[in-house]
Amino acid sequence: MYRIPILQMGNTLLVTIQVDMQDQMALALQDDLANKIATTGAKGVLIDISALEIVDSFVGRMLASISGISRILDATTVVVGMQPAVAITLVELGLSLAGVRTALNVERGMELLAQGRRENPLAP
Amino acid sequence: MYRIPILQMGNTLLVTIQVDMQDQMALALQDDLANKIATTGAKGVLIDISALEIVDSFVGRMLASISGISRILDATTVVVGMQPAVAITLVELGLSLAGVRTALNVERGMELLAQGRRENPLAP
Repeated sequence: MYRIPILQMGNTLLVTIQVDMQDQMALALQDDLANKIATTGAKGVLIDISALEIVDSFVGRMLASISGISRILDATTVVVGMQPAVAITLVELGLSLAGVRTALNVERGMELLAQGRRENPLAP
Repeated sequence: MYRIPILQMGNTLLVTIQVDMQDQMALALQDDLANKIATTGAKGVLIDISALEIVDSFVGRMLASISGISRILDATTVVVGMQPAVAITLVELGLSLAGVRTALNVERGMELLAQGRRENPLAP
């Protein structure tokens, strides 16, 4: 089965979503990410969705679910690169991506993660 | 048409190849990368191929071609994440990826790029 690769950069894991997600793929990504956070001790997860032209409720739920899993495993998730048209459609559809942090691009997302670590003195 | 997203992180562009490349997609990636190097002034290009289970002569030529284009535009290309089985097959097929620099993973690739910049006093 096709699996989305997870890249490690220091304390951060990076996932670039390039194709429309299907059920199996989303479940596999959740599994792989949870395992990777556990084995690497990563503190941040960046999910780039700049290639997605549609974010429906299924993808929205998947992003929220990944954020929730990461949080329990002590990692922060930031969704980056959302196209403006996607944001407009999301709001029109009434999908608010509750519990999902976002940033304009990968660099801003990394800053957000670094900031979070500085602000929390308990974090390494 | 489906286009592979290019992520910018500081001076480096990151591309994750997740699907088998076809002619049009490879040409689009070359175009997009060349334009992105020109507009951002990036000094390094990281191409992650950890999701690829087959690297044939077409992909090999594409990687060599991207490396060549980047070099002319004053950026270094490093191919990272190649699966061991892919490396074995490449050598068995007599494909040597001439002119393409490789590293084990994204982190090592970034080190290689940083090192290259330090060693060349003319580079910023």
